[in-house]
Amino acid sequence: MIRVLLVHDTYLLRAALAALIGREADLEVSSAPWPRAVTASRTMRPDVCVVDMDSPEASGPLGLRELSARCRTGDGTTALLALATAERPGPLRRAYEERALGYLSKNASPDRLVKGIRQVAKGERYIDESLGYGFLEASEIPLTRRELGVLSLAAEGASIGEIARKLHLSNGTIRNYMSAITRKTGARNRVDAIRISQGAGWV
Amino acid sequence: MIRVLLVHDTYLLRAALAALIGREADLEVSSAPWPRAVTASRTMRPDVCVVDMDSPEASGPLGLRELSARCRTGDGTTALLALATAERPGPLRRAYEERALGYLSKNASPDRLVKGIRQVAKGERYIDESLGYGFLEASEIPLTRRELGVLSLAAEGASIGEIARKLHLSNGTIRNYMSAITRKTGARNRVDAIRISQGAGWV
Repeated sequence: MIRVLLVHDTYLLRAALAALIGREADLEVSSAPWPRAVTASRTMRPDVCVVDMDSPEASGPLGLRELSARCRTGDGTTALLALATAERPGPLRRAYEERALGYLSKNASPDRLVKGIRQVAKGERYIDESLGYGFLEASEIPLTRRELGVLSLAAEGASIGEIARKLHLSNGTIRNYMSAITRKTGARNRVDAIRISQGAGWV
Repeated sequence: MIRVLLVHDTYLLRAALAALIGREADLEVSSAPWPRAVTASRTMRPDVCVVDMDSPEASGPLGLRELSARCRTGDGTTALLALATAERPGPLRRAYEERALGYLSKNASPDRLVKGIRQVAKGERYIDESLGYGFLEASEIPLTRRELGVLSLAAEGASIGEIARKLHLSNGTIRNYMSAITRKTGARNRVDAIRISQGAGWV
């Protein structure tokens, strides 16, 4: 019996996916939203965690990093099957950084979900072919960690002055970062750079 | 037998929700992504359409408006069950404008989904109580249609000058619209106004 923990923030979709997984005789499924995922993993000790990477909570303090720490396998990989989309390389990259074994497109068919779970449970890698292009893009986020930090604050609506105060830098430095971000993302202006980066799931 | 057409753009989630609905003996379900929804409705002639309102395609040319035209009931309402979230009043409002009979939170339990389908099939209204606050907000989008148009272009990354040229207005007029938008949304600046409006699903 493979014990599966399914992590998705929306109750109706979580229940629907759990019903799909639970139809299989060899899979036993529990589910939780991100904020309760770590606690649930302590209680049920899952063989595989199937996680929705598109939730903002996945990057939060009780998100992917802490859940991954509880799902390490003997060789340092993680018994995670990440649900992602090829159009958003950011979440894919975050799963990859945690050495997730499995990557499944949300546009995959149900039987591939089940196949992915079984493969990760055996400690084997599972990568949905349709995610290939997303991976290619994920490997080359053009922005540095510092630039991503500046961009996140800008995307929240902070002004240059507010970002500068928050990061203890000068207004001119922030303006330089914003120019570099706009250039690197191929954007027309700051708003466009935010739009592009959010679309890719980088911030 | 109630014929249900389920419209959701993501295959895995669509299949999972369809499996949930299909477990009920009195419900017969087909499913399609938004771009194929109208064609599917012609073929199957559904009694109820269950539609994901959060897809950008729902506002597109083959989206909600055209599907609704095919789901009118005798009294002018629409045999639609809209899946939405209380935090995003924009999609709720669009479903309301099409006189949808049913409104279900994506955080509702599976049995409420089934209950909602049966009620809409009878031509009765179904409103998830947890969407109440969202409805309150949906009734008062503070922006005019013109302001929403300006904001949509700005959110796509267009500059003041580009928006002015596109709408055949002067730069000063666009700047006035942007100030009004920023004030009305309670935003700190233009980027913040875009963030707030996108969060609410208005653009």
